[in-house]
Amino acid sequence: MVGGGAGSFIGAVHRMAANLDGEIELACGCFSASYENSLATGRRLFLPDSRIYASYRDMIAQEALLAEGDRMDFVAIVTPNHVHFDPAMQALDKGFHVVLDKPMTFSLDEAWQLQEKVQQTGLLLALTHTYTGYPMVKEARFRVRRGDIGKIRRIYVEYPQGWLAENVSESDNKQAGWRVDPKRSGKAGSMGDIGTHCFNLIDYITGLRAVDMCAELNAFVEGRLLDDDGAALIRYEGGAKAMLAASQVAVGEENNLSIRVYGEKGGLEWRQEEPNTLLLKWNDKPTEALRTSHGYLSAAAKHNTRTPGGHPEGYIEAFANIYRNFALTLQCRLAGETPPPEYLDFPTANDGLKGMQFIETIVAASSGDKKWTSIINR
Amino acid sequence: MVGGGAGSFIGAVHRMAANLDGEIELACGCFSASYENSLATGRRLFLPDSRIYASYRDMIAQEALLAEGDRMDFVAIVTPNHVHFDPAMQALDKGFHVVLDKPMTFSLDEAWQLQEKVQQTGLLLALTHTYTGYPMVKEARFRVRRGDIGKIRRIYVEYPQGWLAENVSESDNKQAGWRVDPKRSGKAGSMGDIGTHCFNLIDYITGLRAVDMCAELNAFVEGRLLDDDGAALIRYEGGAKAMLAASQVAVGEENNLSIRVYGEKGGLEWRQEEPNTLLLKWNDKPTEALRTSHGYLSAAAKHNTRTPGGHPEGYIEAFANIYRNFALTLQCRLAGETPPPEYLDFPTANDGLKGMQFIETIVAASSGDKKWTSIINR
Amino acid sequence: MVGGGAGSFIGAVHRMAANLDGEIELACGCFSASYENSLATGRRLFLPDSRIYASYRDMIAQEALLAEGDRMDFVAIVTPNHVHFDPAMQALDKGFHVVLDKPMTFSLDEAWQLQEKVQQTGLLLALTHTYTGYPMVKEARFRVRRGDIGKIRRIYVEYPQGWLAENVSESDNKQAGWRVDPKRSGKAGSMGDIGTHCFNLIDYITGLRAVDMCAELNAFVEGRLLDDDGAALIRYEGGAKAMLAASQVAVGEENNLSIRVYGEKGGLEWRQEEPNTLLLKWNDKPTEALRTSHGYLSAAAKHNTRTPGGHPEGYIEAFANIYRNFALTLQCRLAGETPPPEYLDFPTANDGLKGMQFIETIVAASSGDKKWTSIINR
Amino acid sequence: MVGGGAGSFIGAVHRMAANLDGEIELACGCFSASYENSLATGRRLFLPDSRIYASYRDMIAQEALLAEGDRMDFVAIVTPNHVHFDPAMQALDKGFHVVLDKPMTFSLDEAWQLQEKVQQTGLLLALTHTYTGYPMVKEARFRVRRGDIGKIRRIYVEYPQGWLAENVSESDNKQAGWRVDPKRSGKAGSMGDIGTHCFNLIDYITGLRAVDMCAELNAFVEGRLLDDDGAALIRYEGGAKAMLAASQVAVGEENNLSIRVYGEKGGLEWRQEEPNTLLLKWNDKPTEALRTSHGYLSAAAKHNTRTPGGHPEGYIEAFANIYRNFALTLQCRLAGETPPPEYLDFPTANDGLKGMQFIETIVAASSGDKKWTSIINR
Repeated sequence: MVGGGAGSFIGAVHRMAANLDGEIELACGCFSASYENSLATGRRLFLPDSRIYASYRDMIAQEALLAEGDRMDFVAIVTPNHVHFDPAMQALDKGFHVVLDKPMTFSLDEAWQLQEKVQQTGLLLALTHTYTGYPMVKEARFRVRRGDIGKIRRIYVEYPQGWLAENVSESDNKQAGWRVDPKRSGKAGSMGDIGTHCFNLIDYITGLRAVDMCAELNAFVEGRLLDDDGAALIRYEGGAKAMLAASQVAVGEENNLSIRVYGEKGGLEWRQEEPNTLLLKWNDKPTEALRTSHGYLSAAAKHNTRTPGGHPEGYIEAFANIYRNFALTLQCRLAGETPPPEYLDFPTANDGLKGMQFIETIVAASSGDKKWTSIINR
Repeated sequence: MVGGGAGSFIGAVHRMAANLDGEIELACGCFSASYENSLATGRRLFLPDSRIYASYRDMIAQEALLAEGDRMDFVAIVTPNHVHFDPAMQALDKGFHVVLDKPMTFSLDEAWQLQEKVQQTGLLLALTHTYTGYPMVKEARFRVRRGDIGKIRRIYVEYPQGWLAENVSESDNKQAGWRVDPKRSGKAGSMGDIGTHCFNLIDYITGLRAVDMCAELNAFVEGRLLDDDGAALIRYEGGAKAMLAASQVAVGEENNLSIRVYGEKGGLEWRQEEPNTLLLKWNDKPTEALRTSHGYLSAAAKHNTRTPGGHPEGYIEAFANIYRNFALTLQCRLAGETPPPEYLDFPTANDGLKGMQFIETIVAASSGDKKWTSIINR
Repeated sequence: MVGGGAGSFIGAVHRMAANLDGEIELACGCFSASYENSLATGRRLFLPDSRIYASYRDMIAQEALLAEGDRMDFVAIVTPNHVHFDPAMQALDKGFHVVLDKPMTFSLDEAWQLQEKVQQTGLLLALTHTYTGYPMVKEARFRVRRGDIGKIRRIYVEYPQGWLAENVSESDNKQAGWRVDPKRSGKAGSMGDIGTHCFNLIDYITGLRAVDMCAELNAFVEGRLLDDDGAALIRYEGGAKAMLAASQVAVGEENNLSIRVYGEKGGLEWRQEEPNTLLLKWNDKPTEALRTSHGYLSAAAKHNTRTPGGHPEGYIEAFANIYRNFALTLQCRLAGETPPPEYLDFPTANDGLKGMQFIETIVAASSGDKKWTSIINR
Repeated sequence: MVGGGAGSFIGAVHRMAANLDGEIELACGCFSASYENSLATGRRLFLPDSRIYASYRDMIAQEALLAEGDRMDFVAIVTPNHVHFDPAMQALDKGFHVVLDKPMTFSLDEAWQLQEKVQQTGLLLALTHTYTGYPMVKEARFRVRRGDIGKIRRIYVEYPQGWLAENVSESDNKQAGWRVDPKRSGKAGSMGDIGTHCFNLIDYITGLRAVDMCAELNAFVEGRLLDDDGAALIRYEGGAKAMLAASQVAVGEENNLSIRVYGEKGGLEWRQEEPNTLLLKWNDKPTEALRTSHGYLSAAAKHNTRTPGGHPEGYIEAFANIYRNFALTLQCRLAGETPPPEYLDFPTANDGLKGMQFIETIVAASSGDKKWTSIINR
């Protein structure tokens, strides 16, 4: 693991997600730029000192020298955005598979390079777009792709949060610190952090290709250098229209991500804060509330569920679904088997690239007087 | 009453709303362009034939000849949009107050004339922007205006419906017929019918002045001449940003109007389909669910409530609040008294004019390549 | 109208419910034991002094002397429980139909006499068990009676309120005053006031006959002479079991009446505070949320709905459904026509009698050491 | 681990819960009465064959012979009820701590013996009453114990499920099989399986001592030998009254466990299917929705939460909280430290004993004609 030392939020989540199913074991790590922090973290995680490294470059180099079976199987990179590209490239170069936090890279240019590297090496890269790990999101995808709601017309996706409504100093909140800093976060603030999840969710569920967008990004908090709020109208191939909103100044909101998709025949609605319910809506019959773990669900939803209905599964389980599918795919590879489609169901470098295109485009769209900006490819 | 014959939806609602509190009695009417329909409707409503008229012009002229006390006190106009202006002008000319359905007129030009006529005559005009009649909307206004949530930054307002998702012929649905016909509905479809409610709700609650907007209107159903869906970004004086969405093709949605307003200190949320709850949201304390009829509410909310807490009040009561406040104001006038502020709390010609400016602007904003269009004044 | 003077809650609700549809007009009244209050109330309601009476006996006697067409058509009795029986008997004796608030009488004995009087006279008596007036309760009845959920096994019905959690003096709250006074309320407090609604709701929806019950009533507030809380297990013919709970000391609850019925094939759930939704539950398919006013509903539900879907209808509309059906039945009678079943769908003296049997039985069941007490018939 | 082979539900949950935080590692197991199943399961879990045992007696005996540090630290017993007592006694006799599924034993007599053994040995026994592991249940306990809602009067607790609404053969559903079999489940069916959770939840949150109860148990499904549904009225020391309902034939319900507690000053409500919200209710101010992970929560709630607000935590996390607190307590013990109170916050043999008393009492209470049955102690 690269990153995830004391004070990190997402590092601990990665470890719980990896632990949950007993398929993955922490082998080594460089948890912080500070070796002290790294060492303390590693020891707390029961690692021997020999597998706790002072730098990720050391770690990758040293592990590569170990015998197969002894060395780590893959690297999980859970650092701020500006430290995604280099460790990922290093790892791939040395033949390690990668799990990487989103957004994939600091810049679109890095994203292209990384995606190409993944293709060249044939190694696996899983990107933790967590929300697509929820079983009911997979059910939504299944239903939309099967045509249950007909040709898609209108999409609403939103992600309001309130935690950055005030000026937070880095000493108070390590999470906030790097996210509002253009040098570590990249071109976008809220749009890189949570807007990308919105865009990815549309992509995952509908498979539609975005054409162009009209957007306005805002920095409401005084002195903030990156957007902490924004909204966009997005036009999709085939005529579907999406409205995307993300905010980190929506006081009182936690992680109120939701998506609603309306087709010619029906509609569907999913909300992250009550993730085990998927609503299907119709004009001529009652709304149906589909619930995790029922017999009437798709194989994809069932494969990603761990308990019988009515035992709420949450964020960590969704996260763990990405790890588990990645691990199952990896096991197939190691065993020389072809992984079935449900194992391959985790976000990849292609999704990461689309996310970086989204960030690049929405920032450009926000700045000019032109109403519509085409999705920036490269 | 002008309009509201057999097959009308809103006419019956107007009558129930007017009946509810026993302050208003139906005196006469011209309920349809067809005298036969009008006569049948009037008789069913226990009117004598002498007060059932063949045209609204007749009605207004004849009633004006009756003695004070015998003649009607005001005219309620509940016809399609293209028959708002003329009867309203006629009524005002003859000294009758007016209750008028929204949007106020067919065109912005008519709106200006009507608003000026109201000012000249000093007569009352109430516009039935129903949703501002709900007690918890009034509470939202009270709290925002008092500064509870601080300076406003971000507003989300939306009104998804599904009933026009398919092509509906007029013979099947009288309501649908005129709404999708540019000759009777005006420049806009969904935006005139329900988008105006969204815009009005922001205005009523926040009092902010819209500056300009960026919009995209869609006609998803084949052959439809007016928008049946649309979205807009609106910039307000002082820096607040709103996202407005209205759709009549959101399959499975009924009247899912909602508004969320986020200020520097707090947020609030109200949904029309569960109208007796107003959520107040904070970053540092639990979300509060305010409920109709409680002691902790404002005088404005209480004045517009009829039953103790837990007895749900709905759409008809909200509608009746407009009628009741209008009637109470009228009674004060007739008694030579100054109406207290809570009586004056009903939408007027000024609100109608703003609604027509909204329609004019959003249609213009949708058509061009320019990102931002200033609110069209005249 | 008998009762409903200044300070009354339910009198005003009766008037709004009667007004709503324009089918009923207030003709006369004795609104209070105080003639002054009565006169003031009547005048505010636009009655001439000649039709405002000093006592209900006067009113009934005087109105009976008026010519048909001039005199009132029926009497609405909205007084506390101890003043139900006498005015109702007087009215029936003089040939007037009656609308009566629940519980029907002060004692079971009175209930028997009144029910017999209704049968003898052939006159109409409508009892305002409001909650059966909701369209989705009618839908529940329709579905259960049609067998959609199979043979009934388990019923949960509850009505928690919080408003009597503290000792309230009559001067502070006129509603509370008589309800906690055995001389005016009868044998039961909470069970007469709201427990009867629970029992009636089971009866209305399922049609099952109660056999016996086991109960415990509590008076939590110090010095209270009647129950302010209670719970019962009820056994029904055919083996269904109900759990009934009512409380007026459940702090923070408003009128949280709900019923859940589970049969061999499915379950249903309805909650009064969100009355326009009826949930149907299944083991092998998604929960369905039926909503007021949709095409898929029964004729009974539709007949009792006034607006299209998504316009919330509430308590007053439910109340008005009793009045409207009563009035429609009365109109048929006056016109010599047979009323269709949907007009006859309002609570009658038979329901009132069952309610008084419930009160008698639950009080008896609560006091002894015996586990089960048969429903007391007479 | 004892039990948890192929086809087990709760065994896998135990393993995920133990894995989650990386504090516990599976060391050995006897996963099934069939050695084949056991071996297959163990191998799938990456255990060496040497640590996969043919019987739990073998396992306990063999592991006891291993050196400290090599041998297992504790035994998790996840078998049906009739195989709880013996392995637990064996383990304690050999000095192993125990994690045990609920209900603690097959009979009350066994429960006494086991509880005494725990006391004698001074070893730890954690009982997986999962629902008390939820952070918002801990918050409820904290608030009630601090007196926020005042002296408790009325409690409603319920646990409706629908999965046993039909006759299920063991071959179809291994979970159902033993639960409806008196030889493996014990005296009670639904009451042992889920009723105990209800009783435990009251106990955990309020600390009140049950005095006596009145109950009716039902076996609705033809041929069923144990209760599949039941209801009870429970009287608590100090005058509080509880209504407890559990059903496994409530068609369409999943695990709809909920508890509502009303005191003299306020009320609270928690529902397992949306576990991250705790409602606090008041008569004179708005209902407050407390949410997992916020700064305003108690230390107990925070200690048992893993992610920031709005990332739903669910059933596995609640389960893992029991394992984690057990493991943290164990680590303190091993390190010779006194565990802080939040580590000791997991259900113990005392709770297990109370659960068995509940089962014994409710079955007795259901069978006689006597209204009230005192809690059976021994």
